[in-house]
Amino acid sequence: MVISIDSPLDMHLHLRDGRMLDIVAPLSAETFAGGMVMPNLVPPVTSREDVRSYRKRILKAQGDERFVPYMTLFFRSDYTPEFLHSVKDEILAIKLYPAGITTNSEGGVKGFDIEELSPVLGVMSDLKIPLCVHGETGGFVMDREAEFIPIYEMLAKNFPDLTIVMEHITTKEAVAALDRYDNLYATITLHHLYITLDEVAGGLLQPHLFCKPIAKRPEDRDALSNVALNAHPKVMFGSDSAPHPREKKEAPGCAAGVFTAPIALPALAQLFERNGALDNLQAFVSDNARRIYGIEPIEKEVVLENSPYLVPEIYEGTVVPMFAGQTISWRVLSVG
Amino acid sequence: MVISIDSPLDMHLHLRDGRMLDIVAPLSAETFAGGMVMPNLVPPVTSREDVRSYRKRILKAQGDERFVPYMTLFFRSDYTPEFLHSVKDEILAIKLYPAGITTNSEGGVKGFDIEELSPVLGVMSDLKIPLCVHGETGGFVMDREAEFIPIYEMLAKNFPDLTIVMEHITTKEAVAALDRYDNLYATITLHHLYITLDEVAGGLLQPHLFCKPIAKRPEDRDALSNVALNAHPKVMFGSDSAPHPREKKEAPGCAAGVFTAPIALPALAQLFERNGALDNLQAFVSDNARRIYGIEPIEKEVVLENSPYLVPEIYEGTVVPMFAGQTISWRVLSVG
Repeated sequence: MVISIDSPLDMHLHLRDGRMLDIVAPLSAETFAGGMVMPNLVPPVTSREDVRSYRKRILKAQGDERFVPYMTLFFRSDYTPEFLHSVKDEILAIKLYPAGITTNSEGGVKGFDIEELSPVLGVMSDLKIPLCVHGETGGFVMDREAEFIPIYEMLAKNFPDLTIVMEHITTKEAVAALDRYDNLYATITLHHLYITLDEVAGGLLQPHLFCKPIAKRPEDRDALSNVALNAHPKVMFGSDSAPHPREKKEAPGCAAGVFTAPIALPALAQLFERNGALDNLQAFVSDNARRIYGIEPIEKEVVLENSPYLVPEIYEGTVVPMFAGQTISWRVLSVG
Repeated sequence: MVISIDSPLDMHLHLRDGRMLDIVAPLSAETFAGGMVMPNLVPPVTSREDVRSYRKRILKAQGDERFVPYMTLFFRSDYTPEFLHSVKDEILAIKLYPAGITTNSEGGVKGFDIEELSPVLGVMSDLKIPLCVHGETGGFVMDREAEFIPIYEMLAKNFPDLTIVMEHITTKEAVAALDRYDNLYATITLHHLYITLDEVAGGLLQPHLFCKPIAKRPEDRDALSNVALNAHPKVMFGSDSAPHPREKKEAPGCAAGVFTAPIALPALAQLFERNGALDNLQAFVSDNARRIYGIEPIEKEVVLENSPYLVPEIYEGTVVPMFAGQTISWRVLSVG
């Protein structure tokens, strides 16, 4: 069987910088028409100059010209209206991190004081700049996302015209929140559709499946699968593909992140086929994002075939992907 | 401040075999008067000859003569009454593992068919041989112990004269079961009194804190602390100290087990002091076990002092302990 995906989009992508950028950008560009690039570099992307220069470095690294890096800014509550006006056409969204909650998020928001956040959020709402949020509290690891839902609700209520994207959701609580507020949307990763905490720590410990938010319970994965496989109009694919050098993953103090970008489309096809949902893959990996963000990506037709694909053990001797050394049942046949 | 512990006992201990045995046996023998040695070798300890020869290897490895290895057998439902009679004076208990649930447990019990288990459990009850159980189902990793409680209850009801020890309990559900059946007891580890899943996977991933059963939620740790610190008469210290070579811990497919034996007594003293419970430490690390198992250990007085102790990064270049490279506030002053 052969299917064709029209301009697939990855709406949550870590491309890093330097040598890692050179390794991973071409791997996303190979099969995606575009990707929303996260701004949590060191230091984070917080100025127009940062956005422009990071975009240039990505374009240089990606190889394939037909890939659009949709740029983002790292949320700061002290951005001025003038700055936001000046930058709005160069970014697709602003990403908010609670301070210290994940990789390179030390400069994020401390507490969620609506008074402090309101000026920037108000201008974003007026300018139609979407807000993307890493929604976790500092609580117990299995509860962090569910505990954050009231903050999403507070934001959604106070800024009804602001598009708010709950990034990489992992719980049934986040799925349930989607339908309670018109302006709440979500991205879902590949790995959270495949794994629960069992795959990370239920057998032997698997650092390459360790990520933030951590994979949750079976009923959470079921809730995520339900909206993804049924192409719920408010959910989009965002891989949260997060490369780290192998030596940072395979050591005590293992960094959080699963590297999925190069195998995401075949692995999604495998999952959607198993669940009789191949017809919904186009909406999940492209159409929903176009509508939610109001974007029209470049044309790129990716043809996938259900024939065995042996996933590489490692890329460039450095980054280990999900399903490393395993065979998945779909592969990319051609990109046109 | 200085305290003295009379003949401390570690009622759940993995000493392994070969070179690892040579490394870790002296470290337990240094500060404990005795330890109950788990039988999950490869192949497991299942005959009188196995028990005798493993005991000899331990005695040879331990260095300090004043340490009693309390031997155990690996539960098999096909043990004959004659065999159990013949071996009873050479073992302290029989350890039951569900098949495949932890390190080297492949030959364990499949399913819990009371008809199949009854003959051996009946003889054990008659002969007053305690049954120690690794109580986890094959369910979702955070639920495995709570799901196992009905099996403990079934065993406790059907064999009211059998001493049943729930090993290394990690949940409030197991704590609650303690008081429902006269013949249910429990061991609690050092690490489950200190950590929750947050310390394993809430920040960066920490393979040296990965164990089975996995550390659970804050309310579970609170329930464990409550009975341990208050010297509940049915709980005993069992370190479940489980050494693995460093390269097996710091790699994908990290083995389960926390190595705590050499630092267990100072770390317990630190915890009990912080909670104003030093007076209960003697009961938790010795007296309760003596009464529950009806044993009278050799005399060994361990004097502990609250002065800083820098925990080694690694033992013999091979085994990394809990608190490696950290300073704890108590140390062993002398062993007399």
